[in-house]
Amino acid sequence: MAEQITIERAQQLKQKPDENKLGFGQYYTDHMFILEYHADKGWHSGRVVPYQNISLDPAAKVFHYGQTVFEGLKAYRTESGIKLFRPTKNFERLNKSNARLSIPPIDEKLAYEGLIQLLNVDRDWVPSVEGTSLYIRPFIIATEAALGVNPSLSYLFMIIMSPVGAYYAEGVNPVKIHVESHFVRAVAGGVGEAKTAGNYAAGLNAQEEAKEQGYSQVLWLDGVHRKFIEEVGSMNVFFKLNGVVVTPMLNGSILDGITRNSVITLLKHWGVPVEERRVSIDELIEAHHNGTLEEAFGTGTAAVISPIGELSYHGEKYVINGGETGELSAKIYDTITGIQNGKLEDPFGWLVALD
Amino acid sequence: MAEQITIERAQQLKQKPDENKLGFGQYYTDHMFILEYHADKGWHSGRVVPYQNISLDPAAKVFHYGQTVFEGLKAYRTESGIKLFRPTKNFERLNKSNARLSIPPIDEKLAYEGLIQLLNVDRDWVPSVEGTSLYIRPFIIATEAALGVNPSLSYLFMIIMSPVGAYYAEGVNPVKIHVESHFVRAVAGGVGEAKTAGNYAAGLNAQEEAKEQGYSQVLWLDGVHRKFIEEVGSMNVFFKLNGVVVTPMLNGSILDGITRNSVITLLKHWGVPVEERRVSIDELIEAHHNGTLEEAFGTGTAAVISPIGELSYHGEKYVINGGETGELSAKIYDTITGIQNGKLEDPFGWLVALD
Ligand SMILES: Cc1ncc(COP(=O)(O)O)c(C=O)c1O
Ligand SMILES: Cc1ncc(COP(=O)(O)O)c(C=O)c1O
Repeated sequence: MAEQITIERAQQLKQKPDENKLGFGQYYTDHMFILEYHADKGWHSGRVVPYQNISLDPAAKVFHYGQTVFEGLKAYRTESGIKLFRPTKNFERLNKSNARLSIPPIDEKLAYEGLIQLLNVDRDWVPSVEGTSLYIRPFIIATEAALGVNPSLSYLFMIIMSPVGAYYAEGVNPVKIHVESHFVRAVAGGVGEAKTAGNYAAGLNAQEEAKEQGYSQVLWLDGVHRKFIEEVGSMNVFFKLNGVVVTPMLNGSILDGITRNSVITLLKHWGVPVEERRVSIDELIEAHHNGTLEEAFGTGTAAVISPIGELSYHGEKYVINGGETGELSAKIYDTITGIQNGKLEDPFGWLVALD
Repeated sequence: MAEQITIERAQQLKQKPDENKLGFGQYYTDHMFILEYHADKGWHSGRVVPYQNISLDPAAKVFHYGQTVFEGLKAYRTESGIKLFRPTKNFERLNKSNARLSIPPIDEKLAYEGLIQLLNVDRDWVPSVEGTSLYIRPFIIATEAALGVNPSLSYLFMIIMSPVGAYYAEGVNPVKIHVESHFVRAVAGGVGEAKTAGNYAAGLNAQEEAKEQGYSQVLWLDGVHRKFIEEVGSMNVFFKLNGVVVTPMLNGSILDGITRNSVITLLKHWGVPVEERRVSIDELIEAHHNGTLEEAFGTGTAAVISPIGELSYHGEKYVINGGETGELSAKIYDTITGIQNGKLEDPFGWLVALD
């Protein structure tokens, strides 16, 4: 380690919230990790400090030009201690996002070490009620106070953490999804494959409209042809078509999801055929007509698997698997969450122990 | 006015920078304007306060999901006092951007009144050297500390101001532009027509690459066909083709620029034919071959008019008007800047007096 990470402990600890009422991203732990970047010094001054507001010049570039990236991963309390799920993948992806946003690369080892130190200090915040976890949010913001449109000369890398509730308090529940034909999330040549703020801001309108019409989320189509499937909400998406599982290939406009990667790995391990390729909405509708659209589900760190019970496209409704969670979807969900909470074997070495 | 704007004056005023060395967006005035929004109160507590850092929870949505919009306009010191150029247009556009970003509409009159009060307090900051002005940056950021991807329940609207130098210290200079064929700024259905952070973050990579190759900026092509002209850098773009001025029509992925609107108004007033329509890069190259690509220029608040002396596309260079500023470009530049600094008549009522 090039540099020592310092630790300043909070004088007073917060009261921990009721683990049965955590929700998502509402409570934050007692500490956070900060690392600074300046053009003349590189990344420096890594430290764990009490969770606190940050003070920024109103001209800081993040407010005006959105030069920012983030990550999301989880820590789980298992019978054999606190475990992280594939954490190095997140720091690798952070650096890919950095490259796309003209943010200098971060030392992945140093960032990871910061997380470990932070987790150590706040280890009591990893909840233990079934289905709960500690959500971890590393992010970088451009801090230079200058209004020229060009890359910032200074940045803050931070990690904050939030205990989060069971995503499916009453069992996994399929959702109704609106296939979005007006708004576009991202396009090839844009920033869709980076985990950066602008992609999420761009999706709010569509999401609000879908909710008003009774849908949980939108299924995004590509911005060029308006027919190839991209993602569902902030998740990657999979379809089981006549026994074959298909998912949109990485094409530059969708995120290279870590859960997506885990699902593909698992399916291959089981001998279930998986294809990463272009999938059009027409193909799905055709399959629905033929009775071969057997299952559909989103994948992401927050929900792991989110079964899709209904698609709505141009005013038509397409019910999938009778609106119930599919057998394979359930099996994937049970397996990945079982590995995460330590109740199942971890054949791929996905878990990393804190201690 | 529904609500009173309060004023807290700075105890100590900053030293003003040398008006001959202002640059762009490097210095900020003594005060700023703030207005807060909370879901249960609406926009409230408008106040002019000393320019200062803002303190935000690291979970504030602006850092993660980029829910933010901004504006840019200028105040000029003329012989008959301080003048603003078409300011109400900016507040109208701000509300259009708000709608696209799921930000609650702002009371345009209150926001404008905030600007006037701020300008009043900081009036000595409007520089007087020829070509200088006071750049005004209104912006809104989402402040709710919650990691769910949905619209924030609280916002800050702020106005900061920066004295800026003459854009062309040594006379108007044509720039060399790289026609971007890999990266895309925005696509129909996205947020390209909103003035929001993500659009600028998305452009950094291309801009950096263009600079490395000796170009000032990139000319953006549309994200669907990769052939229709969109904008140049952060400016709208015009071409004079065989006596007719053409500019890309407002199509949802480009900004409805106020300078663009002023240029169109001026040309119509002069009886010069103007067309707002699709313009393809092939049409421009064809016109170049025929000798009918007579002039090209960008338009925006910062530079007013930025003549384009050369386009580079797929390795070929296309010199325009011998690399010199075109006659019409110069006339438009002289007229608009003449109106702005009060040296020419203002037939369209574009200037608004501070007093
Ligand atoms: C846009 C988007 N797609 C997909 C995903 C899924 O990625 P992961 O499985 O790494 O959480 C996320 C993040 O959760 C996302 O934000
Ligand atoms: C993307 C973009 N296009 C065009 C313009 C020009 O708009 P205006 O003339 O209103 O400054 C701007 C802002 O300056 C811009 O940011």
